[in-house]
Amino acid sequence: MTSALFTPLFQTQAMAALFDDRAVLGAMLQVEAALARAQAGIGMVPTAALAPIQAACDPDLYDMAELGRATALAGNPAIPVVKALTAKVAENDPTAARHVHRGATSQDIIDTGFVLRARHAVALLRTDLDRAIHALADLSRRHARTPMAGRTLWQQALPTTFGLKAAGWLSLLLRVRTRLLDAGKAAETLQFGGAAGTLASQGSQGVAVARALATDLSLTLPDTPWHSQRDRIADLGAALGLLTGSLGKIARDIAHLMSTEVAEVFEPAAAGKGGSSAMPHKRNPVGTTIALSAAARAPGLVATLLTAMVQEQERGVGGWHAEWLTLADLFALTSGAMAHMADTLSGLELDPARMRANLDLTDGLMMAEAVTQALAEASGRHDAAKIVEAACKRAVAAGHGLLEELATDAAIITWLPRERLAALMQPESYLGAATDFVSAVLTTYQREMN
Amino acid sequence: MTSALFTPLFQTQAMAALFDDRAVLGAMLQVEAALARAQAGIGMVPTAALAPIQAACDPDLYDMAELGRATALAGNPAIPVVKALTAKVAENDPTAARHVHRGATSQDIIDTGFVLRARHAVALLRTDLDRAIHALADLSRRHARTPMAGRTLWQQALPTTFGLKAAGWLSLLLRVRTRLLDAGKAAETLQFGGAAGTLASQGSQGVAVARALATDLSLTLPDTPWHSQRDRIADLGAALGLLTGSLGKIARDIAHLMSTEVAEVFEPAAAGKGGSSAMPHKRNPVGTTIALSAAARAPGLVATLLTAMVQEQERGVGGWHAEWLTLADLFALTSGAMAHMADTLSGLELDPARMRANLDLTDGLMMAEAVTQALAEASGRHDAAKIVEAACKRAVAAGHGLLEELATDAAIITWLPRERLAALMQPESYLGAATDFVSAVLTTYQREMN
Amino acid sequence: MTSALFTPLFQTQAMAALFDDRAVLGAMLQVEAALARAQAGIGMVPTAALAPIQAACDPDLYDMAELGRATALAGNPAIPVVKALTAKVAENDPTAARHVHRGATSQDIIDTGFVLRARHAVALLRTDLDRAIHALADLSRRHARTPMAGRTLWQQALPTTFGLKAAGWLSLLLRVRTRLLDAGKAAETLQFGGAAGTLASQGSQGVAVARALATDLSLTLPDTPWHSQRDRIADLGAALGLLTGSLGKIARDIAHLMSTEVAEVFEPAAAGKGGSSAMPHKRNPVGTTIALSAAARAPGLVATLLTAMVQEQERGVGGWHAEWLTLADLFALTSGAMAHMADTLSGLELDPARMRANLDLTDGLMMAEAVTQALAEASGRHDAAKIVEAACKRAVAAGHGLLEELATDAAIITWLPRERLAALMQPESYLGAATDFVSAVLTTYQREMN
Amino acid sequence: MTSALFTPLFQTQAMAALFDDRAVLGAMLQVEAALARAQAGIGMVPTAALAPIQAACDPDLYDMAELGRATALAGNPAIPVVKALTAKVAENDPTAARHVHRGATSQDIIDTGFVLRARHAVALLRTDLDRAIHALADLSRRHARTPMAGRTLWQQALPTTFGLKAAGWLSLLLRVRTRLLDAGKAAETLQFGGAAGTLASQGSQGVAVARALATDLSLTLPDTPWHSQRDRIADLGAALGLLTGSLGKIARDIAHLMSTEVAEVFEPAAAGKGGSSAMPHKRNPVGTTIALSAAARAPGLVATLLTAMVQEQERGVGGWHAEWLTLADLFALTSGAMAHMADTLSGLELDPARMRANLDLTDGLMMAEAVTQALAEASGRHDAAKIVEAACKRAVAAGHGLLEELATDAAIITWLPRERLAALMQPESYLGAATDFVSAVLTTYQREMN
Repeated sequence: MTSALFTPLFQTQAMAALFDDRAVLGAMLQVEAALARAQAGIGMVPTAALAPIQAACDPDLYDMAELGRATALAGNPAIPVVKALTAKVAENDPTAARHVHRGATSQDIIDTGFVLRARHAVALLRTDLDRAIHALADLSRRHARTPMAGRTLWQQALPTTFGLKAAGWLSLLLRVRTRLLDAGKAAETLQFGGAAGTLASQGSQGVAVARALATDLSLTLPDTPWHSQRDRIADLGAALGLLTGSLGKIARDIAHLMSTEVAEVFEPAAAGKGGSSAMPHKRNPVGTTIALSAAARAPGLVATLLTAMVQEQERGVGGWHAEWLTLADLFALTSGAMAHMADTLSGLELDPARMRANLDLTDGLMMAEAVTQALAEASGRHDAAKIVEAACKRAVAAGHGLLEELATDAAIITWLPRERLAALMQPESYLGAATDFVSAVLTTYQREMN
Repeated sequence: MTSALFTPLFQTQAMAALFDDRAVLGAMLQVEAALARAQAGIGMVPTAALAPIQAACDPDLYDMAELGRATALAGNPAIPVVKALTAKVAENDPTAARHVHRGATSQDIIDTGFVLRARHAVALLRTDLDRAIHALADLSRRHARTPMAGRTLWQQALPTTFGLKAAGWLSLLLRVRTRLLDAGKAAETLQFGGAAGTLASQGSQGVAVARALATDLSLTLPDTPWHSQRDRIADLGAALGLLTGSLGKIARDIAHLMSTEVAEVFEPAAAGKGGSSAMPHKRNPVGTTIALSAAARAPGLVATLLTAMVQEQERGVGGWHAEWLTLADLFALTSGAMAHMADTLSGLELDPARMRANLDLTDGLMMAEAVTQALAEASGRHDAAKIVEAACKRAVAAGHGLLEELATDAAIITWLPRERLAALMQPESYLGAATDFVSAVLTTYQREMN
Repeated sequence: MTSALFTPLFQTQAMAALFDDRAVLGAMLQVEAALARAQAGIGMVPTAALAPIQAACDPDLYDMAELGRATALAGNPAIPVVKALTAKVAENDPTAARHVHRGATSQDIIDTGFVLRARHAVALLRTDLDRAIHALADLSRRHARTPMAGRTLWQQALPTTFGLKAAGWLSLLLRVRTRLLDAGKAAETLQFGGAAGTLASQGSQGVAVARALATDLSLTLPDTPWHSQRDRIADLGAALGLLTGSLGKIARDIAHLMSTEVAEVFEPAAAGKGGSSAMPHKRNPVGTTIALSAAARAPGLVATLLTAMVQEQERGVGGWHAEWLTLADLFALTSGAMAHMADTLSGLELDPARMRANLDLTDGLMMAEAVTQALAEASGRHDAAKIVEAACKRAVAAGHGLLEELATDAAIITWLPRERLAALMQPESYLGAATDFVSAVLTTYQREMN
Repeated sequence: MTSALFTPLFQTQAMAALFDDRAVLGAMLQVEAALARAQAGIGMVPTAALAPIQAACDPDLYDMAELGRATALAGNPAIPVVKALTAKVAENDPTAARHVHRGATSQDIIDTGFVLRARHAVALLRTDLDRAIHALADLSRRHARTPMAGRTLWQQALPTTFGLKAAGWLSLLLRVRTRLLDAGKAAETLQFGGAAGTLASQGSQGVAVARALATDLSLTLPDTPWHSQRDRIADLGAALGLLTGSLGKIARDIAHLMSTEVAEVFEPAAAGKGGSSAMPHKRNPVGTTIALSAAARAPGLVATLLTAMVQEQERGVGGWHAEWLTLADLFALTSGAMAHMADTLSGLELDPARMRANLDLTDGLMMAEAVTQALAEASGRHDAAKIVEAACKRAVAAGHGLLEELATDAAIITWLPRERLAALMQPESYLGAATDFVSAVLTTYQREMN
């Protein structure tokens, strides 16, 4: 499903190539070739038939448009593909042609073909995901002590550090990476059951052929065919949804931090990127916008896969067909979001000075909790909170800074002189366990990524 | 987003063509040309610039791959398109080039370009929808008195007619047709607001240019630009979801009626369609399968459009981008489902004999309600229901038909002699208002479709 | 589905009351009473039976827990309700009891009962929606000329007015209001078909009873029963989704405008609302947060209703049941979002001074487009954009304002002296058609709301 | 969110109790008590304060309606709960009251409270899931050789066994069980970060308090707070969606097998269950209907959780709130579906005779593949498929059985005499690896469940 115009924006070229017609057909033919080899190994197919069959398992030999037209009648692409493959083999070796697709069913070929491509697709995502993870580890480490405003409900709440923010993102991506790799691994499972999932067509050799086929394709041999038990497929989709949701979280944070009024962090600059000649001051988010669009799109697609799990009896009426393009779309949009965010995080530009300046926007009010705690400790007074709260209100009413107000309040200044207050109100001195948290995440990072 | 392999199965070629790169670019260029004309009409753009601009508004003049690469950097396709268009005009007329895209913003071009294609897309759907509707009207009329089992929770409940079933489908499609045409009409609205939705770039002529542009493109002039108010878009998606859900309902009914054990109705036969050489008895559903896959996919895509309505301030961060491929997918899958179902309904094969035979599967039990009512009326007995119920139980226990049991029950036979019972138990005699309902729907059909 | 703890936060009490057990049962009993009246009017039910039946149609007469237990066995609440109602009538009048629920089916009672409550639910929403609309009309009018930064992709782009922003919100709500009222009106349709949708149980009186019942309940008489044609239900859900998505858009805008760094707009203050004693400076969003949570929840619920449209044959296997709590949830969350946003918009606090101050954050860069246009006009130079762009870059590099830079550039100052530049760079002078747009929306408002 | 009327149908009472107001409040208070203990252990809170705090952590001490009203203002229930708890402690011990909720934030309490209940909720589901799994293992074993029609696209395809069908369901539930337990385990993670996720409020003791709190509650101590990293929550939701989708698959299969025309399998009978006095022959699905309704509802709710992952900065604006009722609904509907299906599978009634009879519906055509294979082997003829195909067509045209046709075809009878044909056409002789598959699944079952 590629588009010259949109593919580069919304997905990577490598992922697009994995889901284009040639790759879809190629994977199906790869399964057909492996099936012939497996059956030959067991003696069901004469060895002489192998070479002609394998030679014909080349996607470039086929007319895609013709296959497409036949697919519309047949209801799935495997039927015309098998017919075309058989004909192609027969051109050179009519005897060999009789051994094409022996006892397999369309779904065996389509599902296993998909699984082979899914393996590559997960590997592609992993590359960019690891890139993002390494970038985040680096940001966490370097900025473990870079103070910035912690924001809850988009209100400045208390100081935090950029390193902790990045560690939160990192921790998220590390967990989701495990989920993706696990779901990907689970999905690497052979589909082979014949017309009704019994492999009756393989005579007494059903399990033997299945085992040989799984070995040939380096896939897991399942306990049963899974023509209408689609949990592995839906779970792979869920893992992609979790990844995309995670990227969306990071993306919205960055887009917000890039906003004119915050201006603390920026997507890496590039010629022609996110700019506007009419509005020279704008530093438009691009990668984060795409990641956010992916995060808006993935949940509906995951819902489709979950809905489609209800597949009837031995093979479903529509649910299976609903998976094909949905999975392709999910991989596509995840690849785009992932690549854009790997680029964004790898080249993220920070403005620590602006972070620091923004910490002063509340004129000290954000540091009230720190003062309250110190006052309670120093004075033993139980009403420390009320005293500070009252000072805050007076400061707001007067329109001046909290320090100024506190420093003139006898109930406070007695215990916390102005210099002590000023020190307390430094955001750097009220960061709690931020660096501990960063260290813990980095330790996990070291363990997981080595 | 076309694929040689899958497009013919899942969408119509005509719809695919409306959403391919050339059509997307073509519609954007159509807007640019109309903008130049509108501004020229008002005197903002010299008339001499018109011809060179219009000549360059031909999608075949551009390198799609190059535009795609630039789109990935810019974040949307309009930016590189405008740049390329300006360069193309400048090749022939540098002065004219200065008047390209005057005061418009990317979203003006992309949204209005989409709206123009959506108009065609709705018209395409309407053709197939009307075909399905006419086929259903014909089926309702012809089979208004063809008895078949009414099935609730997949259990035979009471007799109905195929005409009433078809009228139920027809009634559904007629209503959804109105919704689609209304939503389509509402979506035919100009987008034109400039960089922040004020049209400041048009000087004092903003409204005049907008009005002229709307007139040129035969679009509605909205009260304000709608860069981040996306109800019309989401509502169009909802209408497509309603149509697809309706087709899915009809499709599941037909697929079930086609099942080996029911076998009352069949998709039209066609060479190579739905067949299986290994399983010669199968009459696989194809069109209905595709419609069901569409019905499984559409809801998630509609949810995406609703989610994406939350677009920030004057232009959204990701929500807008999430719409593009989602809308394209929705139109694509609806077109495929619609075309398959129009074909299916137009050529639907019925087996009224089998319908009649299936009515006897419960050996008369299904007619118990009819007997109860007649007994109550004839006898005035208040316990008619209990008497018949007891007879039913005895019939089941004995393993013979209900008529046989009833005809030996003195409490019944006194009031309803065997022949009367036999007549009462004819499904044809217990169809209630079925023909009235069919007539009512056909009257609405006449009104709506003329 | 009420909760003492969460209901007041997420829904209105009035809406909660409409969907609580008593109201659900009450509406079903209301239908049963009306059915008896309708059948009595036609002579199917003796007039003497009416009073006892109507007397028993009081929800307070029944043991809800007992009904619930029986519902779990029966699969829907109508079956035990009819049984209990019949027993209750029989206590006083065994003859009348035989006329309870005559020829109706569970779904007739449940659907029609829902429809009656949906009518009230839409009316409840309308009240708060109209309140929000009037508040927005007032804001649009009062602030039609209040300048603020227009923000695209969360970057300041060009000046706009708060009035135009409010008019965009207003325009959105006006359209969605029409959609909601239309969908609500369409949903006010009688369900009455008997066991398989033929009304065979009414003898020859099916249509007559249906008509009388529809009249009694002031509902539309449909062409056919709609037991498994659920478009009106799904469309009502879609309309709620559109409303919630619209409220989410407005809510995210306001939450963002409330953020510490923007601080232009605030939810109305109330004792105990959104505050934090530990963080006295915070002005936490509450109503907008709830609206945003609703906007995140509604799309999935709408998707459920669209998925559930695929209801099998004459009555569905699961799809129908999926609607009940989904619709209740959709009405619930919409009511909460709507009420919170009506309150928020009615008491919205603005800080026009801060809006104006924020317009200066880019030190004039945001006004570059205005200067470019004026320069091009004044000088006739074709390279006006390039000249201004260069000045912008120099200003950024030098870290001073754009005016300062422009005023020292001979290529500019020749045509636009400093005072002219200063005037041009006033946001108030570059608002384009903003007031025209506001007027257009207010005109529509007058028309729609009168 | 309980309802006397609907709760027993759609969820279990035990699950309902876990998500009712009392349990929600109880879990929050449990966290507050544990926090006090953890801080006392470290010396931050005087031991004397423990008893009064713990005594007040009893949900029955509070007025839920009052808390609900305050929640609506505060935006979340923790704020009024803490206030009420503090007041309650202060009634007895004002000093102790100062140590309530020390340095925690609302989200710490709500999230950890939820996690505690989720642990119980997963355990509840596990009980019913294990019940269903054991029932399926039993069915697989007992019916490993019970032949029935394998159905693809609702068409009879080839014979299979009921044991294999049950093994397919079993295999699915075993995998999904692992996913649920893993996701449940991962979700058992402490939330504790204070106002902005740094635990600054705990002074230098942040990590120590967190560790002690995790130990007290038997929860995992995370590397960082996860206020806005919601993967564990969304993944738990996805696991519930996978379970519900799996149950829906089994449920639709059973509902279809229960249909009047198939009638091979039935939900367990129970007094008052699924019956209809007016339609005595009906054996309405109930449990499967509810499971199917859950399968239709869950995907949209999972999509909501994935959408809600995009939570802003240190604490989200709406996304977090969107989780609460969505998770409650997901657990609720999964519990109902799970319990209904555990009951259904535990008491499933089979009609093997009907299964066998249905295998004859195609008059032997379904066995064509078996004949083709035997013919090819016996004769060495390459055109075996064509010969049999032609015979099939003749049989259909003539309206008699395939055996009759084959037995008169010289090209066949030469190699396969009538008795051999008759034997070949016994479904029992063409079951392939069905028993191998059943064995493999049962082996996994033994391993996983011991």
